[in-house]
Amino acid sequence: MSKTIELAQHLEKLHINNMYKSDFYWTWDKTDEELDAIFTVADALRDLRERNKSTRIFDSGLGISIFRDNSTRTRFSFASACNLLGLAVQDLDEKKSQIAHGETVRETANMVSFMADVIGIRDDMFIGEGHKYQKTFMDAVKEGYRDGILEQQPTLVNLQCDVDHPTQCMADMLHIIHQFGGVENLKGKKIAMTWAYSPSYGKPLSVPQGVIGLMTRFGMDVVLAHPEGYDVMPEVEEIARKNAAATGGSYKKVATMEEAFQDADIVYPKSWAPFAAMEERTRLYQAGDQAGIDALEQKLLAQNAQHKDWTCSEEMMKRTRNGSALYLHCLPADITGLSCPEGEVDNSVFDRYLVPLYKQASYKPYIIAAMIMMSKVKDPVSALMAMDSGDKRKSF
Amino acid sequence: MSKTIELAQHLEKLHINNMYKSDFYWTWDKTDEELDAIFTVADALRDLRERNKSTRIFDSGLGISIFRDNSTRTRFSFASACNLLGLAVQDLDEKKSQIAHGETVRETANMVSFMADVIGIRDDMFIGEGHKYQKTFMDAVKEGYRDGILEQQPTLVNLQCDVDHPTQCMADMLHIIHQFGGVENLKGKKIAMTWAYSPSYGKPLSVPQGVIGLMTRFGMDVVLAHPEGYDVMPEVEEIARKNAAATGGSYKKVATMEEAFQDADIVYPKSWAPFAAMEERTRLYQAGDQAGIDALEQKLLAQNAQHKDWTCSEEMMKRTRNGSALYLHCLPADITGLSCPEGEVDNSVFDRYLVPLYKQASYKPYIIAAMIMMSKVKDPVSALMAMDSGDKRKSF
Amino acid sequence: MSKTIELAQHLEKLHINNMYKSDFYWTWDKTDEELDAIFTVADALRDLRERNKSTRIFDSGLGISIFRDNSTRTRFSFASACNLLGLAVQDLDEKKSQIAHGETVRETANMVSFMADVIGIRDDMFIGEGHKYQKTFMDAVKEGYRDGILEQQPTLVNLQCDVDHPTQCMADMLHIIHQFGGVENLKGKKIAMTWAYSPSYGKPLSVPQGVIGLMTRFGMDVVLAHPEGYDVMPEVEEIARKNAAATGGSYKKVATMEEAFQDADIVYPKSWAPFAAMEERTRLYQAGDQAGIDALEQKLLAQNAQHKDWTCSEEMMKRTRNGSALYLHCLPADITGLSCPEGEVDNSVFDRYLVPLYKQASYKPYIIAAMIMMSKVKDPVSALMAMDSGDKRKSF
Repeated sequence: MSKTIELAQHLEKLHINNMYKSDFYWTWDKTDEELDAIFTVADALRDLRERNKSTRIFDSGLGISIFRDNSTRTRFSFASACNLLGLAVQDLDEKKSQIAHGETVRETANMVSFMADVIGIRDDMFIGEGHKYQKTFMDAVKEGYRDGILEQQPTLVNLQCDVDHPTQCMADMLHIIHQFGGVENLKGKKIAMTWAYSPSYGKPLSVPQGVIGLMTRFGMDVVLAHPEGYDVMPEVEEIARKNAAATGGSYKKVATMEEAFQDADIVYPKSWAPFAAMEERTRLYQAGDQAGIDALEQKLLAQNAQHKDWTCSEEMMKRTRNGSALYLHCLPADITGLSCPEGEVDNSVFDRYLVPLYKQASYKPYIIAAMIMMSKVKDPVSALMAMDSGDKRKSF
Repeated sequence: MSKTIELAQHLEKLHINNMYKSDFYWTWDKTDEELDAIFTVADALRDLRERNKSTRIFDSGLGISIFRDNSTRTRFSFASACNLLGLAVQDLDEKKSQIAHGETVRETANMVSFMADVIGIRDDMFIGEGHKYQKTFMDAVKEGYRDGILEQQPTLVNLQCDVDHPTQCMADMLHIIHQFGGVENLKGKKIAMTWAYSPSYGKPLSVPQGVIGLMTRFGMDVVLAHPEGYDVMPEVEEIARKNAAATGGSYKKVATMEEAFQDADIVYPKSWAPFAAMEERTRLYQAGDQAGIDALEQKLLAQNAQHKDWTCSEEMMKRTRNGSALYLHCLPADITGLSCPEGEVDNSVFDRYLVPLYKQASYKPYIIAAMIMMSKVKDPVSALMAMDSGDKRKSF
Repeated sequence: MSKTIELAQHLEKLHINNMYKSDFYWTWDKTDEELDAIFTVADALRDLRERNKSTRIFDSGLGISIFRDNSTRTRFSFASACNLLGLAVQDLDEKKSQIAHGETVRETANMVSFMADVIGIRDDMFIGEGHKYQKTFMDAVKEGYRDGILEQQPTLVNLQCDVDHPTQCMADMLHIIHQFGGVENLKGKKIAMTWAYSPSYGKPLSVPQGVIGLMTRFGMDVVLAHPEGYDVMPEVEEIARKNAAATGGSYKKVATMEEAFQDADIVYPKSWAPFAAMEERTRLYQAGDQAGIDALEQKLLAQNAQHKDWTCSEEMMKRTRNGSALYLHCLPADITGLSCPEGEVDNSVFDRYLVPLYKQASYKPYIIAAMIMMSKVKDPVSALMAMDSGDKRKSF
């Protein structure tokens, strides 16, 4: 029996009826079984591809991507996922469009969704804005479908908002599951999500928030650490606490990177901007105050520079379990001595983890494809079984 | 019997042999039955898609798009249409190309058409230039095919030129046909194509020209109104007059928006630039006189501002048939109090017509797909019938 | 028997087992039979397309393109080739990506190759850099495949580097073969690869290098001519000499365009930058010395201007065999009196050769598709035979 068939049989046992036609905003909107389904389908799609099986669901159709911030990894992951299922990607490049001041999100949403099966949106720059944009967009296409404007209802894959980065964190999690030989081995494992110094500015909070919101669901001991003033959104911390309480794991905050790294099995040191500053930035942005934004940037860079000791050095790594915790990063990293004089991680540490880091990234296209498949296919079990015995991807 | 089969049976009665391998420049190049065929195939393709039937004609092939002006709606419509039929879109971004001063249109045309099945071009900025560019381009690829350079002859879909905007106006017309329950109900209906004030500059004349050139063919009473100096091309008015004479409808010009709106069944208030000024602009452009172009822009904006009373206000709408004419716009509109302080239409009017406006736009991908299909498929009746009983678009 | 079957039977006789899974950097890495295979498959794919046969190998999959320099012809050729075989193109636009200073080529290579079947790279701007980038990139994806990051190993098509421009020169060569009625008619034919004056700066050396490195393999008398100081890379000249010695042809350098053109059967007059100056430019680039680069540009333009007599005039053409040598250019050309006051070629000469010039270019998509097919298909003979009796490309 192939791995895909085994995975399809596992999928059959899960309660996943609500996933059909649903959007993927945040991992905490989804049940444990629904997340399990995403991981299962991602693994199956990878197995099928490795065995040169066609995984096309669509004979034609479009995946619309909207990147309101630059992207390489996620852009190529979304393109790969769409292609894997038979969708062509049409990117909305706001610079080449007629989207002027005043065109509503509702109008844009309908105008680009004529034949869209799926919509992928990255909008992570302003606290309180990214999710709102995605929600407004998807409400508009739902209305558009209801009103007979669109002849199908596209579904959303959140490619990063101000709150969560689910395609990243789900890929991170699938990587962890495989590295530790199965989700059943994660109970009691300690994962340290920590701030790290970076010479750049305004990195989104969605990764640390996504990590504590997701990884508290697998029985792990999740520890968050950051310098004073670099808090994440309190709503997400609340979710992390509830998750931990429900799964027998734990969630706590500690004051130093050293304490977080102590005996950790997994470390995820990464820079982000302070939540309060990001709220201030959003206010300045809404007021159109570019001078204020620039001044804030200078202030934040100076503030960052007071915490250069928050770095994933060789010394710091020695504190982890056997000195060899699994090191994670969403990439690209600010690497001390390679991409900057002082950054998030020592070059020697980063270099030692290069292969697992790239593997971590390599799950993202499959996670996205699984999210699309679960929202577009009514009977994914039968679909996987048909693919398993179906046509080749490369014919000759 | 499915709607598609009914439509295919209607198509069978039409004289449409000349459409195969033909280009689509202007609606007035086409016979009434040819336009009927486009509407019929557009409706059939939509029906097939709603029923999850594959409408692929091409197993591979390219649609080349050239947008010499920004676009969202038309770009996504063209991409959707190509995808619907199985073509991938390759966009010629002149900024990323080596198209230097001096490379002839003939050379570019051949170089991007190696495997092009269809070419979509938007070139609407300069009077006397847009159509010329399209014609030169298509003559070049015809020669290229004849000379054995290209192994197939691509056909054109005019995505807007300086004279006509056929994909827009055909979508507008199909919307009208559906709103009024069939083309047979349009006889004697009054449609008002009127200028409206906009704070922006240099909007193309191709929409009002396309509207009077097309909508005079269905027995309607077509009225054009604009302030003094905002005339459209006289050649197109001549076509409108001839159309009206031939179909039992009428075409006339009136001096005020009020008169045009009086008892109108359909209104299409929209800003455009004066033809004479656009001719002047083309001369300045050809002379490379940017200062002259800038000065002209200031002059035209001042001229526009004298006609702020040309706006689709609630008061103006009250004059129409039962105060509830069908309001049309090609989008995006300049909306008073939403996208600008004073514009083409009151926010309350625009908002009330949002759903029909988006529906109007939603026909464009199907109109484009129908234009492509009629020019590439020798026996479209059999093709529709085969699609009707053929494979699913989404397999699972 | 179809032309494709004949070509497949010829292919069957060639020793081409090493091509499967191989990269295409330079023509001189390949055996004569391997180049023969590329020409054969290119001709077969064109024959199949002309007969409306599907040439899809891939049901899904991506071709990744990276253009580090502008491109129209090669961009559309690569897109056409990928489409012909069933691959979608995903372009890495470095401006829209997060590729920052410090992100290694190794990381980028893995991040964009998640589902890449083929990678096309143009990097021709700096001597000693272009090939190095391609090699580093492909070594990274090979490691990525070996380490389980990528689930397939993509192969390279060099879309132009600092050393060779194989897709151009192979297309040029296939054009020559067809113009002369077969490779067997080329023995003793004289081809003149000469420098020509252009008012622009810094054109790559990869075309003249590619031409002398490839065309010395077919028994032709290859002559290179350029003004003093415009030498090409000595390593490539050495290859040209060895090729000539092995195939009974010849390679020599002469000092004037007149001598090169004398009795030539084929002429390829084209501007390029001096190798030594390009080396200097690379040093300035590596040192970040933009002022130095600008000064060098001025110096080189002045140097170019001393050689305006190196131009493919009507007088120069009269020296060739019967005054009617086959004129080649990779396009776009600097045409005297059309695109510039004084350039590489007289307008009347260029215009007379327009059809063969466009034909020359039209082989490039098929050459690229053949390179992809030979590297991805284990049994190309069977594949061609199956295509010959297989499905239509356009169904209706």
